[in-house]
Amino acid sequence: MARSEPARGMRDFLPEDVRRREYVIGIIKRVYERYGFEPLETPAVENLETLLGKYGEEGNQLIFKILKRGEHEASGQADLALRYDLTVPLARVMAHHQSKLPRLFKRYQIQPVWRADRPARGRFREFYQCDVDALGSTSPVVEVEQCAALSEALLELGFNDFTIRLNHRQFLTAVLHSLSIPHALHASALVAIDKLDKIGAEGVKGEFAARGIPGDAADGLLKIFQLRGGAVGAGLVGDADAPAGDPSFQNMIAILDLTKGTPAEGRVTLDPSLARGLSYYTGAIMEINVPDLAGSLGGGGRYDNLVGMFLGQSIPACGFSLGLERILVVMGERGMFPPGLASTPADVMVAVFDAKDAPHALSVAARLRQAGLRVLVYPDADKIGKQIKYADSRGIPFVAILGGDEISAGTVTVKHLAGNTQNTYDQSAAGAAILEVLKRRG
Amino acid sequence: MARSEPARGMRDFLPEDVRRREYVIGIIKRVYERYGFEPLETPAVENLETLLGKYGEEGNQLIFKILKRGEHEASGQADLALRYDLTVPLARVMAHHQSKLPRLFKRYQIQPVWRADRPARGRFREFYQCDVDALGSTSPVVEVEQCAALSEALLELGFNDFTIRLNHRQFLTAVLHSLSIPHALHASALVAIDKLDKIGAEGVKGEFAARGIPGDAADGLLKIFQLRGGAVGAGLVGDADAPAGDPSFQNMIAILDLTKGTPAEGRVTLDPSLARGLSYYTGAIMEINVPDLAGSLGGGGRYDNLVGMFLGQSIPACGFSLGLERILVVMGERGMFPPGLASTPADVMVAVFDAKDAPHALSVAARLRQAGLRVLVYPDADKIGKQIKYADSRGIPFVAILGGDEISAGTVTVKHLAGNTQNTYDQSAAGAAILEVLKRRG
Repeated sequence: MARSEPARGMRDFLPEDVRRREYVIGIIKRVYERYGFEPLETPAVENLETLLGKYGEEGNQLIFKILKRGEHEASGQADLALRYDLTVPLARVMAHHQSKLPRLFKRYQIQPVWRADRPARGRFREFYQCDVDALGSTSPVVEVEQCAALSEALLELGFNDFTIRLNHRQFLTAVLHSLSIPHALHASALVAIDKLDKIGAEGVKGEFAARGIPGDAADGLLKIFQLRGGAVGAGLVGDADAPAGDPSFQNMIAILDLTKGTPAEGRVTLDPSLARGLSYYTGAIMEINVPDLAGSLGGGGRYDNLVGMFLGQSIPACGFSLGLERILVVMGERGMFPPGLASTPADVMVAVFDAKDAPHALSVAARLRQAGLRVLVYPDADKIGKQIKYADSRGIPFVAILGGDEISAGTVTVKHLAGNTQNTYDQSAAGAAILEVLKRRG
Repeated sequence: MARSEPARGMRDFLPEDVRRREYVIGIIKRVYERYGFEPLETPAVENLETLLGKYGEEGNQLIFKILKRGEHEASGQADLALRYDLTVPLARVMAHHQSKLPRLFKRYQIQPVWRADRPARGRFREFYQCDVDALGSTSPVVEVEQCAALSEALLELGFNDFTIRLNHRQFLTAVLHSLSIPHALHASALVAIDKLDKIGAEGVKGEFAARGIPGDAADGLLKIFQLRGGAVGAGLVGDADAPAGDPSFQNMIAILDLTKGTPAEGRVTLDPSLARGLSYYTGAIMEINVPDLAGSLGGGGRYDNLVGMFLGQSIPACGFSLGLERILVVMGERGMFPPGLASTPADVMVAVFDAKDAPHALSVAARLRQAGLRVLVYPDADKIGKQIKYADSRGIPFVAILGGDEISAGTVTVKHLAGNTQNTYDQSAAGAAILEVLKRRG
């Protein structure tokens, strides 16, 4: 007998799961479209070389690689890989389809990605990302519109306690430079800083030491990075002697100012310790958090050089990704799904007393569907009690029963299970009658 | 510079493509739900052993296999694979989650599958299937409801010329047996018969000869198989001395009779030559065709033993799959998409004369969105003519312009590009005014 588990770190979504996922995706999509983002989809499978070298060394290790086919299979070599994020494929698309795409291109993309990470609570090997990206402009309006769109989506889902942390890659560089940390150690320092939330200040200090960053520079850095959130502006950074005059700092101030009057107002706070793991960011970087989740609900930033790796010509770009799985985890724990969501498979089940009456069941079902109802035909002529019990167990509110009397009279008996009432209707009138009761119940 | 093509046989879907796909998927989904099917999703990646041995020898060759990770990567071995169809994962799900699923389970599943086939016109290596399956009943009502659901979906998409060909695996066996073809050659004969459409009667005769099937048996078979379509019943089969008394033949007649009064009425024709490639079918088999497509739009059948391979206990099952890509190809060629579908990225574009006015653009955009409009904010303070030209090139019908006068007066000038008219509104009234014009245009 074959094993029946899904692959490690992967999940089956039963009907109730799918309905919850579609509810969340539906809201996110509607909000993204309200901001002028257009839908894009890319293949699950990319050429391996498209992905390699875009996500840093750790990323390369987590890419699922696909074996060559046919006579080459025995070589054990891979030439394809599973999509690792939605940003690199977008950069590839922008280069490949440039002539068909507008100069300013805003797209959203809601698709799964795959990473061979160690599975853990809320961390899966197949997970959906909900990305917005804008290509073709360097204006901070781009970052602000994305913060606004994400805030509006989260607000519509019922989140009221999220924060968007904001930092800037060039500001981080300027800070590291001002503390005389050699340029060769910057990437290494960022990787350590990125762990502040997970391993705390002492842990990061240890990482600094291990990476050869001088002790006093480490102290200076941590002093800056712990001054997160709260008041924003020159005060915060001036205190720590950081380069508040750097253009990157002005860019962050512009972003913060522009959020006023948008749904992101009051949500964005400057966090000098935010680093973001991915290597392709070049400007503002952002991350969304809620208090009861250790990781982030989403994140993003500006990456002005990635498209150039495929096109040979730079195109400014900025994007933001919401993590669907984490949103679902928090919404589930907080009970944020609307009660009517776990819906039943049908509004009406059609039951028959005798197998020979199946033609009547099918034509009554066709009529009820034409009236706009979702109808399940019970396929077997089981005892009527068993059939009704099935409808009840599935939460189907109505059972349409066809016995000999009904069939010869052209009628149907409709049992309302919750109300424990029943009425007999002309077959042509039953649909409207059931709809009426459904509407009254809301 | 990195290559920018998608992987071989895979496609990028630009916004217009996605909208067409979502239009078709939306209709199919709505119809499936009307028939009481519930949504299910399974991972793109399955354990390799889950898929091996389920699709026949040719199928095994076409499975995309995923390399082991980490220290095992160098071994060149595969342990995972990409989903090859939606039926085997359903059988696995039915076994794994049996306690959570109802005794009679009707599910639909609309997801991509991957096959390492040689790419050709309309044949891709990543393609979507739209499946319905019902588990737990042997009644022909199951087959009929599926034919009805698929017919209703195709009719709502605008297809009026499709046919559902019907045959039965056990009937094929009975026919082969009646012609004294040895049992050991049956599987081989079915593979040859399945090619009748592609290689014609002479080609199939050649295949029979190559497979050691006696010449007179081949002639008898072809005589039966060319009598397809048209009149149904004992006449057709009796003429050719085939076993019309076989229960499988009665099952087909029952299915045909029950389609009366459903949307499948008049669509189903018996075709004794239909074989279907996949090895897991055990009963009725079906295929949908339209005149202007060489392959099929979809197909399916009964597979009563597949779930048992995972569960150790048989569960009767029957399913039908619509091929999304082929539906899209035919709809594109026939011009069947509604004209309004290739929609614009937004209803309104907000333009500004000066970068310092961006805060006003963002807050006007927020107001227009609250009114229910899809709004794109032009991010840069380009010359106003360039901004309007962009809106026009994207088909955005309205441009909301904010100059110094408007900002100090709290107004906004709204230009209707198609009408070449413009009006100035209070910022709080602009949304309603634009919606009014959009509604009038339909």
